[in-house]
Amino acid sequence: MTDPLPMGATIGILGGGQLGRMLSVAASRLGFRSHIFEPSANPPAAHVADRVTTAAYDDLAALAAFAASVDVVTYEFENIPTAALDVLEATHPIRPNRRALAVSQDRIAEKDFLTSLGLTTAPYAAVQTLDDLRQAIARIGTPAILKTTRLGYDGKGQARLHSPADAEVALAAMQGAPAVLEGFIDFSHEVSVIAARGADGSVACYDPGENVHKDGILATTTIPARLSPGQRTDAILLAARILNALDYVGVMGVELFVTSSGLIVNEIAPRVHNSGHWTQNGCAVDQFEQHIRAVAGWPLGDGSRHSDVVMENLIGDDILRVPAIAKERNAALHLYGKAEARPGRKMGHVNRIVG
Amino acid sequence: MTDPLPMGATIGILGGGQLGRMLSVAASRLGFRSHIFEPSANPPAAHVADRVTTAAYDDLAALAAFAASVDVVTYEFENIPTAALDVLEATHPIRPNRRALAVSQDRIAEKDFLTSLGLTTAPYAAVQTLDDLRQAIARIGTPAILKTTRLGYDGKGQARLHSPADAEVALAAMQGAPAVLEGFIDFSHEVSVIAARGADGSVACYDPGENVHKDGILATTTIPARLSPGQRTDAILLAARILNALDYVGVMGVELFVTSSGLIVNEIAPRVHNSGHWTQNGCAVDQFEQHIRAVAGWPLGDGSRHSDVVMENLIGDDILRVPAIAKERNAALHLYGKAEARPGRKMGHVNRIVG
Repeated sequence: MTDPLPMGATIGILGGGQLGRMLSVAASRLGFRSHIFEPSANPPAAHVADRVTTAAYDDLAALAAFAASVDVVTYEFENIPTAALDVLEATHPIRPNRRALAVSQDRIAEKDFLTSLGLTTAPYAAVQTLDDLRQAIARIGTPAILKTTRLGYDGKGQARLHSPADAEVALAAMQGAPAVLEGFIDFSHEVSVIAARGADGSVACYDPGENVHKDGILATTTIPARLSPGQRTDAILLAARILNALDYVGVMGVELFVTSSGLIVNEIAPRVHNSGHWTQNGCAVDQFEQHIRAVAGWPLGDGSRHSDVVMENLIGDDILRVPAIAKERNAALHLYGKAEARPGRKMGHVNRIVG
Repeated sequence: MTDPLPMGATIGILGGGQLGRMLSVAASRLGFRSHIFEPSANPPAAHVADRVTTAAYDDLAALAAFAASVDVVTYEFENIPTAALDVLEATHPIRPNRRALAVSQDRIAEKDFLTSLGLTTAPYAAVQTLDDLRQAIARIGTPAILKTTRLGYDGKGQARLHSPADAEVALAAMQGAPAVLEGFIDFSHEVSVIAARGADGSVACYDPGENVHKDGILATTTIPARLSPGQRTDAILLAARILNALDYVGVMGVELFVTSSGLIVNEIAPRVHNSGHWTQNGCAVDQFEQHIRAVAGWPLGDGSRHSDVVMENLIGDDILRVPAIAKERNAALHLYGKAEARPGRKMGHVNRIVG
């Protein structure tokens, strides 16, 4: 697939959450239709999709029918089963590609990959046994955090080690799954680069945003981030290096810790990213359209920004503040159409244009 | 209906063209669903709607079922049959209201209404017979234009009179329909005000844009328009007067001629308007969301602008320029997903951010 998709083509999107919803809207702006594949009923993306398939990711017949109805396959989350990818890729390109998925699905593979590029991550060590863990602690020290290497455990599978004495309890929390011990980083703040790479190999990055988390969930992203010109350039070049190394096509979120000794890569996400939502009200081409442009083989937007923005996530009961936010000047609401507000659930976000 | 619609409510939209499409997307941003009623198959709005009813406007059972499934009814075009409105209004509010529709469906009713507010229109006279027309010519002079009073004649029903001798031919072109003779206006340029009025009676206007037409179709809108501060204030106050007089709820497009002796009202449209498309990339709350906010009883956005914009319509074969436009810096594409490009057909638009 080298030619740009013609208008009227259908973008297949795995996952019907808020990211799929905003991808679907962006696809429509370029004249494309979207077909959402999502196991749960009435997902947010269904409200603005041309077509929806409700089926599980192990329903290979449904996946094959989905693939037959679309022109390209992309996704809003990285934890897609391998068998599903096999079925889809038999007939269609998957963008971003499977290497990007494989790397980001496994914490050790991700850190090995980043390290191989000469980038810095937190110190880490693979852990399967108590003996592994004790050796890892001896090398990395405490405090540290033990995590299962694979995602998709519903937030479970993490344990903090305050001292070496916590080793046995922490390992038990992994329930036998392969794990990785990560050292703590002394960082001043976290920033992220929303980077895109087109099918032609061109790369475009948005200016880095500064992220603040609360209870482990992104709370706000502020553009521009507090970075020196040199740090900003470093961040963007580093992101571009990751995308090129993966022969990546699409948008990626690259989370970075800012430390006195340089930028440390926290995590990469092979998809549009919560910390890129500000682009909807700061740029002519937002991250969702940028991703659709990339996977459709269109030219990328250049990432330039017309306005400074502070993005605030609306989580759980924050949704009750919507009537007040709706009265604010220069505040752009983006709600996800979720019926029920649960603690920790992302219900929407607001982009405040600040300059 | 006085309380704001809750999130998750359904906005019923009559008409599935590009305006319905962009209204549907805006509704989703506020957490609403949309249900489109449209006679033709596969309309642009269907690609981003939660639900679509494909039925004719004289299918009263389909209209009643549509009404039963939604929380409020609005529309993207003004030429809705009275019987359809009767069925819908039996159970649901129609916003904007029927008086606004009645006024804008009939050129004489519109001009009588505007004149009654003390506003200036082109000179006009009702014409049914040749005798009427001769008297009208004697008063208004030539050149002039004879138009059927009702819209919906597929662009037919207009005839120019270069001299009084053209009277008989012009009247014949009306095919017996009631008509209105309009005098020509000597104007320097056309501007439009996109004005909104909320359910609480508050009014918010966007800064006027300057419109250029080509072959009778809007070609570009440039923000800001060439207007003195006094003219700008006049334009906005005039629009607000129209909305208040109609107890209007929603967005209206008010087209004005700028002349040496003041502003002359050309036409009003009780809906979102092509000349307001620039707001998508110039404002935190665009005209589509503003309309949804109004009909849902939400607070209006204030109409403030973060960027200057030039909007260009992509008509017919202009769609072939999309690959080049996609490479432009600070150009935001909005394509309508129409399968076939015909001459004069609006295929999309581009908002160029210019400052």
